[in-house]
Amino acid sequence: METSSEQSRRLSAQLAFIREIDRVKSIYRQTVLMDGARRENDAEHSWHIAIMAVTLSEHAPPELDVLRTVTMLLVHDLVEIDCGDTFCYDTEGMVGKHERESVAADRIFGILPHDQAAYLRDLWDEFEARETPEARYANALDRLQPMLQNYATSGGAWREHGVTADRVLRRNRIIADGAPELWSYARAMIADAVSRGFLDPGPEFRREMELG
Amino acid sequence: METSSEQSRRLSAQLAFIREIDRVKSIYRQTVLMDGARRENDAEHSWHIAIMAVTLSEHAPPELDVLRTVTMLLVHDLVEIDCGDTFCYDTEGMVGKHERESVAADRIFGILPHDQAAYLRDLWDEFEARETPEARYANALDRLQPMLQNYATSGGAWREHGVTADRVLRRNRIIADGAPELWSYARAMIADAVSRGFLDPGPEFRREMELG
Repeated sequence: METSSEQSRRLSAQLAFIREIDRVKSIYRQTVLMDGARRENDAEHSWHIAIMAVTLSEHAPPELDVLRTVTMLLVHDLVEIDCGDTFCYDTEGMVGKHERESVAADRIFGILPHDQAAYLRDLWDEFEARETPEARYANALDRLQPMLQNYATSGGAWREHGVTADRVLRRNRIIADGAPELWSYARAMIADAVSRGFLDPGPEFRREMELG
Repeated sequence: METSSEQSRRLSAQLAFIREIDRVKSIYRQTVLMDGARRENDAEHSWHIAIMAVTLSEHAPPELDVLRTVTMLLVHDLVEIDCGDTFCYDTEGMVGKHERESVAADRIFGILPHDQAAYLRDLWDEFEARETPEARYANALDRLQPMLQNYATSGGAWREHGVTADRVLRRNRIIADGAPELWSYARAMIADAVSRGFLDPGPEFRREMELG
């Protein structure tokens, strides 16, 4: 049984972690709020996809552990406290990203008591590996949410960075692995964004649409 | 069995809800970020306490349903889209707050398919009523997090609004109902904040400390 001083050491470590992660509220992403007022930050993004995980769970694989998925989503961007946000269409910035973020994950989750540090560190690895149903569904939501934000802002970050529809399709096709119904919706949204002029189609748009 | 068009109607309603709640990211609270840079908003606050619910669950009542608690916390401030944030020490602003927020809860959760609207609406009522272990623990975290933010910013919103330690103790004593160990910690933090000059004790500080 735990002694009271062991409990108090655990609580101290947990509160140190809770204080440390406040910094995620200052990590800004490329996507803007749906009213276009400003960029959103990682804490807001994580909150939004956590609610999506709950409300869209009927479109996820059956028998999914929703709490595991939500926890994964709540912590998936904490590594950006040390590494910053890399825009997903920034090909150069993506080089070595996973290695840098792994070091950050060790440090940040390592603030917690050992058992909790190991649990959340594994959950982050699981998210990154995209092999379990929970990780696939979580990644699908992580991709879908910025698409909703970009569409709502008439192209938003897509337009600002000259990202074309064929790249959006290629980048986000993994949504189909975690939630096929959401990928159908996303494809239709991309086609609609092209027809409204929110997105340039790019040279391979038609081929990418055929690939699904 | 659901028809495909019923599925698609449900998804449309779910995505309408997901778009609507983006507005929570623009509802600013009185508490400031731990680096003092700016006020935090409801989405950031909700994200933070959802992670707290997971990482502090060993201090909650046993057999607690963590997913239920996390979901409750993720949605507990959505009503502020219509009602705005009321500073918890604003006695006038608190009058009629629950009635105004109930109307907002009907509208906002009502965007979802009926079964999900009812589930989240009930969960919001449960949070407000503070009767179940999940609601008591959720309320404890909702109270503790701004205290951590205020302490980290040398008094923060307490100081800005001239809130005294006796009022902080009275307002937050319900933390003890949901997580007694966290209340012990919070009381020690308040006493420390007084000794550091982050908080004025107020006329009844000593008596409130004795009341526990």
